[in-house]
Amino acid sequence: MKKLDLEEIASRVPHLAGWSVDQEKLFREFNFADFPRAFGFMSSVAIICQEMNHHPEWTNVYTNLKVWLSSHEVDGISDRDFELAERMNALFAPR
Amino acid sequence: MKKLDLEEIASRVPHLAGWSVDQEKLFREFNFADFPRAFGFMSSVAIICQEMNHHPEWTNVYTNLKVWLSSHEVDGISDRDFELAERMNALFAPR
Amino acid sequence: MKKLDLEEIASRVPHLAGWSVDQEKLFREFNFADFPRAFGFMSSVAIICQEMNHHPEWTNVYTNLKVWLSSHEVDGISDRDFELAERMNALFAPR
Amino acid sequence: MKKLDLEEIASRVPHLAGWSVDQEKLFREFNFADFPRAFGFMSSVAIICQEMNHHPEWTNVYTNLKVWLSSHEVDGISDRDFELAERMNALFAPR
Repeated sequence: MKKLDLEEIASRVPHLAGWSVDQEKLFREFNFADFPRAFGFMSSVAIICQEMNHHPEWTNVYTNLKVWLSSHEVDGISDRDFELAERMNALFAPR
Repeated sequence: MKKLDLEEIASRVPHLAGWSVDQEKLFREFNFADFPRAFGFMSSVAIICQEMNHHPEWTNVYTNLKVWLSSHEVDGISDRDFELAERMNALFAPR
Repeated sequence: MKKLDLEEIASRVPHLAGWSVDQEKLFREFNFADFPRAFGFMSSVAIICQEMNHHPEWTNVYTNLKVWLSSHEVDGISDRDFELAERMNALFAPR
Repeated sequence: MKKLDLEEIASRVPHLAGWSVDQEKLFREFNFADFPRAFGFMSSVAIICQEMNHHPEWTNVYTNLKVWLSSHEVDGISDRDFELAERMNALFAPR
């Protein structure tokens, strides 16, 4: 795993729908129609995270979910963060 | 809560996409693209069930989920089963 | 539901193991042996929250969970926050 | 992964608290104080299963959970089933 430099991050983030950079982490906010849908999404993501051995910092308030992704092993953003962000988008998209 | 008679059940089931009657219970099978999606759906449903105080009999194997709904209070199928079935369909539909 | 005054909150918080007041909300941090235990706890709490129609602000990072409880209906802390805090403690205690 | 023979299974099952053999699968029934605890346990297990890439057949009705474990790759019971059974016991034990 290697730390991505700012230039590479800046060139890739625009291709990741809904995500931006916040506090040197990938950041996205998700909103849901109700709490059961919000928490069901979190459950799907929790299972994927354990499989990837890569866990987010996330804050939930009712139907709102904020996610920050970074790789503490490299003290920055890595490919793994982009991969998890893409998997979260794929899960979210069809709802 | 009252027990619905067979005639009423037979007239309503055809309007409930995917559901049939099995062993005097409402029955539906759901299939998902992967296990995280299957279990995320179950988490959403679990939250709704507790809110309705009405819990299913359900069996999961990997990406497959079978659900049986009935109301033990009336020893049969009630309006509450139709309501939960509809809420499960609404959650499932947009995926 | 009524907003509790500071005096009442200050007298009750010491009886609520692990909780304190942060930013005019009830606050507690939970730590778990691993991520599956952390998220399993969150799932139990999510189901209880929907039943109470009272949802937390919570932030999870791996095995750490921070929870803030307040009642936006009264713009402060109410009995309901104490009740949810106690139910979370009861779920956490025996692990 | 190899299929364990009946003799080996019979010698190991007695050391696995609560488990027996049913329909050529490892089988255990779990009971919980309430539905939030039952489903929280299932959430923890779901996360572990994805990590192990080994998923159970399980049936839940309210506070009751029945689990059958087998390895379709070997058409029988393997070490992996014993490992998952032990991890489920470890999660359940301290409650």
